[in-house]
Amino acid sequence: MTLALYELGGLNDRRYSLFSWRTRMALAHKGLTPEFKPVRVSDKAAIAFSKQDKVPILIDGEEVIHDSFRIAQHLDTCHCGPSLFGGEVGQSLSRFFNTWADRTLVPRLAPMISIDVLQIVDEADGKHLRGVIETAFGKTLEELSANRDKDVIAFRRLLDPARANLRAQPFISGAQPAYADYILFSLFQWARIVSPFELLEASDALAAWRERMLDRHGGFARAYPARV
Amino acid sequence: MTLALYELGGLNDRRYSLFSWRTRMALAHKGLTPEFKPVRVSDKAAIAFSKQDKVPILIDGEEVIHDSFRIAQHLDTCHCGPSLFGGEVGQSLSRFFNTWADRTLVPRLAPMISIDVLQIVDEADGKHLRGVIETAFGKTLEELSANRDKDVIAFRRLLDPARANLRAQPFISGAQPAYADYILFSLFQWARIVSPFELLEASDALAAWRERMLDRHGGFARAYPARV
Repeated sequence: MTLALYELGGLNDRRYSLFSWRTRMALAHKGLTPEFKPVRVSDKAAIAFSKQDKVPILIDGEEVIHDSFRIAQHLDTCHCGPSLFGGEVGQSLSRFFNTWADRTLVPRLAPMISIDVLQIVDEADGKHLRGVIETAFGKTLEELSANRDKDVIAFRRLLDPARANLRAQPFISGAQPAYADYILFSLFQWARIVSPFELLEASDALAAWRERMLDRHGGFARAYPARV
Repeated sequence: MTLALYELGGLNDRRYSLFSWRTRMALAHKGLTPEFKPVRVSDKAAIAFSKQDKVPILIDGEEVIHDSFRIAQHLDTCHCGPSLFGGEVGQSLSRFFNTWADRTLVPRLAPMISIDVLQIVDEADGKHLRGVIETAFGKTLEELSANRDKDVIAFRRLLDPARANLRAQPFISGAQPAYADYILFSLFQWARIVSPFELLEASDALAAWRERMLDRHGGFARAYPARV
């Protein structure tokens, strides 16, 4: 049976798709090893078979599934191994967490570090990404990142509800990580791969949590080199 | 066995404690009917037995439990009936939801409607509440509520992650409400009891959800009159 993940690939085989890292960790959680298929961000022809234009895309036998949350639901329903959601309430609140991360955190994170993506992709991909992000935010990448030393302070504050969970337990989802942990981790792993800019203070409980996440599944995420 | 809930009581027996409504709904979810003990907000002597100064406080036999989230954990552990959390992941993400609501929503909601609380409490309680809230926000209640017709638009936008869940299901927690629903509902029930100011547009999916919540447990929450 085919199991394959289409995701963004950059120079030197860097895998820098934020949303793909949610799926990568979910697959590792389930003990599944797909074939990883890198796609250049400007190459929409490569994923035209999925009838939409975004990665990640999971091919599981005859099924073609896009959207990282739908992929996680598919994995939890159709594959055994530890649950990603821990039941209906857990899945519902993971969906809430997913929307919270995407609407509250990503719009603050992307402006700070997108400029650094240009160094890990080729010229055509860089031009494509610059166009998409500058159009979305109405500013140049240089303007967006100019005050990141200050902007990161507000970003850290937005993480408070996640940080509060770590007072009671080692992972956001409990004694073990589950999909909500992978959602939040995907932001940090994306940042780690694309940018030397540090998002967390060393004393932050989330910094220790991030180390635990890098260690999970045999150090699966740590094996990908950080940008220095 | 004693089962009693200490909570704020105002004029005409109005029960206007935001956090107590989380506990009220959690008790109803478990099919439990406690004795309700109203306490005036300025009367700290009445709850000194709990060795802290905030309601809600649940007395369950020999146990005295304060803090609405800890009470919910106690109810789910020590009483049968439908689960409030649906397992460990659900409980962990409900805690996240609790912190999100308290740090993101309550600080936007309280300034808009606290001024209306003065009409449903006696003079001593009103003076106490004015002091607490004006100190916390550094503005008078009149200043805090002056622009609420505009401020409510930003408040509605903050609800987006909860609203997004309702596209897929009738309640935030799934096909049935669970503790996360009660957390969010407590804000609207508090507002409903203390203020005639409307927080939601009629077409909002959350307005329909609020009606469903008012109907739950035999119309338990609807039985308390709305402020008009």
